[in-house]
Order: sequence, then C-alpha cells, then structure tokens
Amino acid sequence: MLDYKLLAALAAVVDQAGFERGARQLGLTQSAVSQRIKLLEARLGQPVLMRSPRLAPTPLGQRLLNHVQQVRLLEHDLLDEVPALGSGDEPRLRLAINADSLATWWPEAVGRFSDRHRVLFELVVEDQEVALKRMRDGEVAGCICDSPRPVQGARSHALGSMRYRALASPAFIARYFPNGMTAAALKRAPALVFGPDDRLQHRFLAMYGVEPPFPYHLCPSSQGFVGLALAGLGWGMVPERQAARELGDGSLQEIDPSGHLADGRLVDLSPQRVVDIPLYWHHWRQGGQVLDALTDHLLSLSDSWLVPPDATPGG
Amino acid sequence: MLDYKLLAALAAVVDQAGFERGARQLGLTQSAVSQRIKLLEARLGQPVLMRSPRLAPTPLGQRLLNHVQQVRLLEHDLLDEVPALGSGDEPRLRLAINADSLATWWPEAVGRFSDRHRVLFELVVEDQEVALKRMRDGEVAGCICDSPRPVQGARSHALGSMRYRALASPAFIARYFPNGMTAAALKRAPALVFGPDDRLQHRFLAMYGVEPPFPYHLCPSSQGFVGLALAGLGWGMVPERQAARELGDGSLQEIDPSGHLADGRLVDLSPQRVVDIPLYWHHWRQGGQVLDALTDHLLSLSDSWLVPPDATPGG
Repeated sequence: MLDYKLLAALAAVVDQAGFERGARQLGLTQSAVSQRIKLLEARLGQPVLMRSPRLAPTPLGQRLLNHVQQVRLLEHDLLDEVPALGSGDEPRLRLAINADSLATWWPEAVGRFSDRHRVLFELVVEDQEVALKRMRDGEVAGCICDSPRPVQGARSHALGSMRYRALASPAFIARYFPNGMTAAALKRAPALVFGPDDRLQHRFLAMYGVEPPFPYHLCPSSQGFVGLALAGLGWGMVPERQAARELGDGSLQEIDPSGHLADGRLVDLSPQRVVDIPLYWHHWRQGGQVLDALTDHLLSLSDSWLVPPDATPGG
Repeated sequence: MLDYKLLAALAAVVDQAGFERGARQLGLTQSAVSQRIKLLEARLGQPVLMRSPRLAPTPLGQRLLNHVQQVRLLEHDLLDEVPALGSGDEPRLRLAINADSLATWWPEAVGRFSDRHRVLFELVVEDQEVALKRMRDGEVAGCICDSPRPVQGARSHALGSMRYRALASPAFIARYFPNGMTAAALKRAPALVFGPDDRLQHRFLAMYGVEPPFPYHLCPSSQGFVGLALAGLGWGMVPERQAARELGDGSLQEIDPSGHLADGRLVDLSPQRVVDIPLYWHHWRQGGQVLDALTDHLLSLSDSWLVPPDATPGG
C-alpha cells in the first residue's frame, strides 16, 4: 500500500493553502509536515508541490490528491457499514459544475440531497472542455457540461436543457432598439458575453442573420452578468430560471408573452426565440455509494429544474 | 513604430478565440491572419500564441496584447479631440475585479458611468494577489482588491469596505445551533468557503475562539455561495448588499437587530459581529482619459455602495 501519512500531509497543505495551516489541521508541527512532503517527493523522484508563484500541486501532486479523495469516498462507504471504524472525517466530493448551473438549480438540488447524505462538496467552475479534461485526469469525480460523450471510466446521463432568453433593461432597449429588433440595431448594441467560449449571443444573433463582429462587454460572473444587464450596459442570454429568481418573481410562468419579466426591470428581447443548452451529468463508474446516490437524485429530480429535451418554447 | 497590422491580427485571434473567427472580425482570410502571426513570431524569435491544449497567448503575446489595449485607449482620447479620424472601434477597458464586488455594487457603478462614456469592459475575476500580479505585468489597466499598496507605475485609492455577515438558513440553524452559537457547535457546522484564499469564515470563527480544522464546502461562485446557504448546506460570510439584493428586500436597513433578513430565508448568526474588508481601486497612471474618468466616478460614488472606513456595525 501507499504511505497515506505522506499523502494526507500533501492533502492538508493544499487544502489549507499553506504548510502552517496544513500542519495545524493535522495536529502536527510544520516541520513534520515538511518532512513528510520531502519524503514523498524523494520517493517519487519528482515534486508534488510548486512553491511559487503560489503554493499549488504539480500535475503529479494533483493526481495523488485525487487518489486520496477516491480513497476517502470509499472509506465513507465502509464507515456506513462499519460505524465503529469512524474517524469523524466527512468525505469530500470534488465536482466541476458549469457556472450557470451553479448560479441557478444546483444549490437547491444538492440542498435536498445533503439532508440525507453527509458529504462536503468541493466545487470547481469550468466550461465543458476543461471539465471533461479534469474528469479524464481524475481530478474531479463528476461534472455537469453540455457534451454527452463520457470520458473513459465514466458514464453520462442527459439531465434536460437550460433555457436562455435574450434580456435587457427597458432603458437599454429604448436607446438601442427604438425601431425594434433589426439586424442593423443588433450589430450596434453592446452584448454581454461570459467568456471567450460563450457562443450563446452569437447563436441568438445568427437567428437575425447577424454575424460577428459585434460590440460586447466580457463578464465572467453569472451574477455580474445579470447585474450589467440590469444596469443597462448590454443585452445578454440569461438562464430563464436565474432571471426569474433574480427579479424575485419566483415563477417562470410570469415571463408573459409580451416579454416583460414580472417586475419590468428586464425585458425579453424576443420571447419566441430561446436558446436551449442540453446538460449532461458525468460521473466515475467506480465512485462509491455517495456518488451513485447523487446520480440517482439528480436524475430523479432534474425535470423540476431543467427543460425536458422535447419541450417547445412557451410549453 | 511597431507593425500594428501584425499586433491587430494577434488581438483578433485571441479576442475571438480562433483563427477563423479572428480573420472574419478583421475582414481577412484565415491564411492572411496566420501569415501575420507567423511573421510576428519570426521577427520576435519567440511564439506569441500557444496552440494547445487550447489557443492562448504566451506571456510575451499577453504583453503585446496589453500594449495594443493601451494604444487603443490612447486612440480613444485622440478620437474625442479629432473625431474625423474615427475608426468606429470602441475602446476595451480590461480590469480585474474581485468576485464579491462584481456580484454586488460594480454593475450599478459602471452602469451610471457608461451612460456618459462609450467603453466596452473586459472583466476578469481574480483574488487580490493575482490581480496585482496582472497589474504589474500590464495585463489589466485597473483592479479592485483589498491591498492598498500600488504596483510600480500605478496609483491606488481607498474606496471603503465591503461588510460581510454570517448567514444561514433557519433550518440549518435549527439543526446545528439548537443551543445557540457555541464554539463546539461552530466546530461541527459545515461552513461555506469561496476558495483556498477565502479566510472570512476563519476570521468569524476566531471571534468565537474556534480554530481550524472545521468542515466546509468549497464553492467558487458568488451566486452559488448564497444558493448553498439558502439550500441549508452551510453557513457563510455573505456581503451585506448581496444578501439584501438576493432576498429582494432592497434595503440594508431591513437587516433588523434580531438578525432576521427581511424575508426570513436567511438569518444573521450574529448581527453584532461583522467582518469589514477594505477595498482599493488600483489603476495605471498613464491610462488615458477614460481610465481617469472612471477613477473619478468610482471615488465620487463609492460611499453609496461601500461602508466608509470609520463606520461601526449597525451605524
């Protein structure tokens, strides 16, 4: 077997972002923790930690941390069956979630789950390519992304689609669309774009025959994105659920056919034109019972949060 | 002078995250854009773009892009004075903003600013160390972070403080704090932590004499963070303004002394114990008039969004 004392030292230092705090977590001296990590590196003949520009695991270190996480998940299953072994540690489940899911339905989903299962989540926000790479490298035990194809050793399941609507403030619309949604006006009106991989605005513009370039602000924060729309800086594709919650109307039905969201602070530019992005849950095949239970939970309830694949706009 | 045709090709490819889209933005063929970038790399004797794992500028490429951005800001000033030169390009202002500012007061602040100044924002979300490094490397023209010390060639100004309160759902409080806020209960109740550099929860726990380790979920999304608190997964330090907006009460005064936020879905664990984080605006000294105007705007209005340094809790 591997020497888990050494691996636990590595995990504590990374988890606590420092040798001193990592040592405190383990109830050891800083020098004891340093010794363990040096010994681990000497055995491997390679560094597991980069010290600068900031403390971070090397790719090898990351691979080891992931192994530690897997072992802890398996220990969690064992403890359910043999409580007397109890170490008091709760397992950590490391998952990559796309930003819009994390800003909308994910908290409610795992809220219900954690009522029944003791587990601590370690979430990372990634777009899909990076999320799948992290799955492949074994750095996360599961991910939500818009690609159906599982990586080796994993499974994927369709959850339904996230529906996006083009929203802007009334003042923005009065300024940039005085004569309605023409291609010429869309070519001039600043859009909001989440990041370089965000093509949602491009897809909406294509429905009006508008091609890049077009002016846009870049804002890689879900809440900042809606904030900039509310402040009248641009129009952007916002998850229907996020808009409903942000505006406090609590119900998607209140996005009425005239395109006014309940409180009128944001208006749907084109209520009949939505963009649906299908989402998939990917997870390790051998991830232990907590991961299996989370999979069952997400599949049984995803209809409450996402649009089934065959739904039509307004349906 | 540098050959700006080559630099513009680099900027377009990075901006559009692809050679084909970059070429379309410039109205050129893909092969013409490739040729320009090859020529640039041949002259420099070093690559400016990494092609894998994904298209991204090298550090040298990033330095050049930043120079292009500076030149564009200066052109923007020139155009104000000599409109006949007009190229139709709007300047991009690249800034690093801490996640909680972007989720709270920043959109409203720049909304008012952009009513008067035509500028497109390119925001990056960074914690303070990385933000200052990006300032030093010239990758961003300004940043908001909690360190007062400017990097070389930049200035910094105090804006005021962001006030954080420890919030949790009533169900969470009933489950983990049936006998009130004891150190023993705080040691067991899962916290929410934004990322490895987020020490807010540690600071709050220290007021109760609680030292790490303590159980926590990691969630690097401002909206997801509040979502997990609402869903009852943990307690966490939430910006006062974000809590007020998220819960739709619109007014900080409604966080009443009993600790119940207006609609009761989140409760302040300890209304008299807040954590204030001072924020500073850093900007290049020679950043052009748009940057100067933004600086004046932020300084004149920051009182509306942040707590002045000498304010006391409840004041």
